[in-house]
Amino acid sequence: MMKLAKYISIISIFALAAADKAPKSPSEIAQAAPDSAWSQINADDIVIFTLKDGREFTIELADKLSPIHVANIKKLVRAGWFEKTSIVRVQDNYVVQWGAPENTKLPDGINLKPPAEYEFAKPKDFIALPFKDTFALHTGYINSWPVATDGKKAWPVHCYGAIGVGRDMSPDTGTGQELYTVIGQSPRHLDRNINISGRILSGMENLTAHPRGTGTMGFYEKEEEKQPIIGAKIASDLPESERPKYQVLKTNTKTFQEWLHAKANRGAPFFIKPAGAVDICNALLPIRKK
Amino acid sequence: MMKLAKYISIISIFALAAADKAPKSPSEIAQAAPDSAWSQINADDIVIFTLKDGREFTIELADKLSPIHVANIKKLVRAGWFEKTSIVRVQDNYVVQWGAPENTKLPDGINLKPPAEYEFAKPKDFIALPFKDTFALHTGYINSWPVATDGKKAWPVHCYGAIGVGRDMSPDTGTGQELYTVIGQSPRHLDRNINISGRILSGMENLTAHPRGTGTMGFYEKEEEKQPIIGAKIASDLPESERPKYQVLKTNTKTFQEWLHAKANRGAPFFIKPAGAVDICNALLPIRKK
Repeated sequence: MMKLAKYISIISIFALAAADKAPKSPSEIAQAAPDSAWSQINADDIVIFTLKDGREFTIELADKLSPIHVANIKKLVRAGWFEKTSIVRVQDNYVVQWGAPENTKLPDGINLKPPAEYEFAKPKDFIALPFKDTFALHTGYINSWPVATDGKKAWPVHCYGAIGVGRDMSPDTGTGQELYTVIGQSPRHLDRNINISGRILSGMENLTAHPRGTGTMGFYEKEEEKQPIIGAKIASDLPESERPKYQVLKTNTKTFQEWLHAKANRGAPFFIKPAGAVDICNALLPIRKK
Repeated sequence: MMKLAKYISIISIFALAAADKAPKSPSEIAQAAPDSAWSQINADDIVIFTLKDGREFTIELADKLSPIHVANIKKLVRAGWFEKTSIVRVQDNYVVQWGAPENTKLPDGINLKPPAEYEFAKPKDFIALPFKDTFALHTGYINSWPVATDGKKAWPVHCYGAIGVGRDMSPDTGTGQELYTVIGQSPRHLDRNINISGRILSGMENLTAHPRGTGTMGFYEKEEEKQPIIGAKIASDLPESERPKYQVLKTNTKTFQEWLHAKANRGAPFFIKPAGAVDICNALLPIRKK
């Protein structure tokens, strides 16, 4: 929010000052993290989608948190399902959604009634954020995934870039054939109401900048508004040399502690009043392409 | 997040069921509100911006909360300043920002060192939301504006669509010559660090769908990427018949109570587990064009 006129000179000031006095920003801390602070994301959980205009977006599937839905989505990818889908809905401050035309035949072997997988017993390795949350007793992370808990159960939260599974009225109708991602203020009222099966790793800007749909709920009204998806591949199905590789910051590291502190307490000279807290959806763990 | 295949039939079911059994959605409650539940927005606080491609976006200035900044912005509008500006920055999940090229001469009469106006004594007519907040003791509304409080002071919060005033390092350098709006998860760490002078009334989709900038902090790197603003008018300066008219839902109404309850407790048949709470940035008061 720095004014443009001063933008260049401010950058220079930062470059001079950063080394000694100015506290590091969260992204500077993440960038300076040693290789040992990062965890490799499993190539079998990475899906690369290609849009008709050649742009890509890449997601990670939450294999451990949502195994039945994720198994379906992997089958759909490998059966070429997503090449039949398009971006059909862009609702401002809410979601981008992609799916196939009505009555498109699903491939064989898809679980047509997967259980909801909305919540599960809170595991011992849950890492709590030390801040209040509007919706839950605590929020934090399971492995690297943002979650909330009531003390007994835990569930993934609908943050920016979360990948959700469209469904009909009944919770066991989310086959994975239609997916969406969150593009606005986190719609936490969807938590425990729709399955979360993944998150965006890269290319979010290739989803968020599409024109908003003019139909009800942001659905596109004209066929030509829809952006077709022409490719979907699981990284582990590609030759080793062609696989995109991503890493996520580990929570059991000194870097994570420093990063979280910096997130909650932005430093001078620009910040005058540190917030002293950060919400889970503004504390999504740094991800880097490696 | 309903699947497309069932979308049409579901709408029909709703239409049949809504009248008797299904609880109303927040937007249905707002749409059914009587005229007496709405407050007219002052035409002198409405600014209509026109982009070069003819699309518009309209903002309301927070005259009561940020009078010195708002006075500057009105002077800038009336002096034709914003016709010298362009959208210069689109940072995904953060902000869209518009400003003029470096060294563009400001009009006469602009306060070059406005005080920060970041917070003020909590007024008696503060309406608190009955839910926890990560950052503050309470959140709620002053008149119709979303605010937070520590019990003594109150301050506007950086929700989706908030209009902020770009500044340099010192808090008294936000002249209003460069404005931004929030296009992602609410960056509440900016609260009390940057002045909020307004909010989007309409046309947000004409700001959010612009390509993300590829430079540092989302600044556009090429001149041709910038979308010029070719018009900025205060509604009260237009002939009565040409003024856009907006209304905001009053908080001292039965409709507001019903709407807030529905926001925090989304109803069946689609929702299985009501959240029981809503954060201030998902409880922005309904605004309608009238």
